[in-house]
Amino acid sequence: MSQTMTRITLARRPDGAPAPEDFRLEDAPMPAPGPGEVLVRVLWLSLDPYMRGRMDDAASYAQPVPIGGTMEGGAVGEVLVSNAEGFAPGDTVFGMFGWASHAVARARDLRRLDPGLAPLSTALGVLGMPGFTGWHGLNEYGRPKAGETLVVAAATGPVGSMVGQLARLAGLRTVGIAGGPDKCALATGTFGFDACLDHRAFTDAKDLRAALGEACPDGIDIYFENVGGQVMEAVLPLMNVGGRIPVCGMISWYNAGGLGMNAGGSRDMLPRTWRMILVKRLAVTGFIISDHWARFPEFLAEVGPRVASGEIAWLEDVADGLAAAPEAFIGMLQGRNVGKQVVRVG
Amino acid sequence: MSQTMTRITLARRPDGAPAPEDFRLEDAPMPAPGPGEVLVRVLWLSLDPYMRGRMDDAASYAQPVPIGGTMEGGAVGEVLVSNAEGFAPGDTVFGMFGWASHAVARARDLRRLDPGLAPLSTALGVLGMPGFTGWHGLNEYGRPKAGETLVVAAATGPVGSMVGQLARLAGLRTVGIAGGPDKCALATGTFGFDACLDHRAFTDAKDLRAALGEACPDGIDIYFENVGGQVMEAVLPLMNVGGRIPVCGMISWYNAGGLGMNAGGSRDMLPRTWRMILVKRLAVTGFIISDHWARFPEFLAEVGPRVASGEIAWLEDVADGLAAAPEAFIGMLQGRNVGKQVVRVG
Repeated sequence: MSQTMTRITLARRPDGAPAPEDFRLEDAPMPAPGPGEVLVRVLWLSLDPYMRGRMDDAASYAQPVPIGGTMEGGAVGEVLVSNAEGFAPGDTVFGMFGWASHAVARARDLRRLDPGLAPLSTALGVLGMPGFTGWHGLNEYGRPKAGETLVVAAATGPVGSMVGQLARLAGLRTVGIAGGPDKCALATGTFGFDACLDHRAFTDAKDLRAALGEACPDGIDIYFENVGGQVMEAVLPLMNVGGRIPVCGMISWYNAGGLGMNAGGSRDMLPRTWRMILVKRLAVTGFIISDHWARFPEFLAEVGPRVASGEIAWLEDVADGLAAAPEAFIGMLQGRNVGKQVVRVG
Repeated sequence: MSQTMTRITLARRPDGAPAPEDFRLEDAPMPAPGPGEVLVRVLWLSLDPYMRGRMDDAASYAQPVPIGGTMEGGAVGEVLVSNAEGFAPGDTVFGMFGWASHAVARARDLRRLDPGLAPLSTALGVLGMPGFTGWHGLNEYGRPKAGETLVVAAATGPVGSMVGQLARLAGLRTVGIAGGPDKCALATGTFGFDACLDHRAFTDAKDLRAALGEACPDGIDIYFENVGGQVMEAVLPLMNVGGRIPVCGMISWYNAGGLGMNAGGSRDMLPRTWRMILVKRLAVTGFIISDHWARFPEFLAEVGPRVASGEIAWLEDVADGLAAAPEAFIGMLQGRNVGKQVVRVG
């Protein structure tokens, strides 16, 4: 076995959008697993919007990555050495292995994967955290009812595509928002959205709202919020009385750094929003999926077979090699990926 | 019986804060009840913040009052003439009789009052819509748990004082916000709040936040939102993970007229708020109490005896005569009333 591993560390904190210089690819000594631990070789690394938050030194729901620390991330790996009961070399597992070629992890932090269910990389997307986020947020806070209308942005991403497909299967009208005509074609084709709007085709929230109003003739009952920004501003006045807004992210505001820069909107947007919540009797519920892992087996039991059978579709954008991770991550924050962004590491 | 009644109509739509000239006191022919209707003499008129919204020509959850129309309002009346089965002259009833000395109403729109339970005017406050608003919002969307901390503004008002007392009785730490040292003394004295902050003693949301932080050493689990504005901005960052925000009003923003004028705050307040909802996993739920009348009997059965026994306290500010209603209403929107604002009409 090699005596060194490679990893990507946080070289400095980004000023707004991350730049390649914020990351550093470096070698490190191969770690040795202690008692109850395993050494894994990373096969697939997940890139997710939440990682942008970890790069800032701001209080959030999780600790920031320290300067010089390995970038955090969920990954699929193969066990090379096991000092833990129940795991053997060759087992495939999911864990928070980070942006690295190898990692040591405690057995209790691993989730064993079934390589027969679907390609291993799906454990990072449709059958992993993003898919689970869509399933949990839609069912728990969205409370979909047949005949209602749902809107979700980033419609071809791993969260949005799960939300849209589950809602369609539950009998809702589904309207996606995505960046560019190609993604919109994927949304209505591969993912079965009833309609998809290209947000790049609109100059402001008002324009987008007018188009959304046409695409949602009966108003909007559920807005699954994963982007914030102008989409949120466009959607809100179209919400029906009793509407639900699960909030799992707001990628459009992530790069604003302290949220003061690209925040956009006018000074009265907060009162307007608050008033909308009252007048439309909206239920706006924030959630962080890591609070809800206890329900993951239920998700996997329900959605796993539907993915295996092809009833629920998924798309991946694969970057090759750990060294490609920073550029892929930067591109993902700009919406350049198509489908779930993963990195083939091993 | 007199051949004329008096009423107060909407003379013109207010520009910002209502002025006396926006109202007109006038005589009108005494109406005659048709089949299934009663004629009532109004005894007590309720003045409530929601009425400000009815004076604007903006789409809301209810129709605006037309120019020249009688100002809307809940009231307690005595049946003078009954053409409806089940009602007899002398019965005391609650109904939406408006700002008027007399009114005709359909029997099905009346609620019969028990004059033995508590003074009749309480049907407009502690045992009426405001008390019910506090009870329903706290229990349904606030979901209080013993040991938690609750914050509510307008703490001596009929909604805030109900919320605070119910929360205290449920074992929560209760912190009120009110305008002026006298109201704060009432909040901690009459209504048993653990602490009360005088919002006039602070220059901005940041100052208020610092004081709230001291008054809420374990953070805030429930913020019962009835004012909006700087209180809301002060409270939000102090919310605990999993916190709940029932939204029943935002009086501080009501006079902003289209919400563009006194809206306050900075351009990035909306992204900050949205991010807080996510990071703190908040459940923000707007509600309009008129959607929930079906639960009113449950409220009355639970809270009525506690009011009758004195366990739940209440305060009223009485204006004398219908002609005094506009000034009392204008004063209430400025926080000049102490306790539930009513008008002794009859």
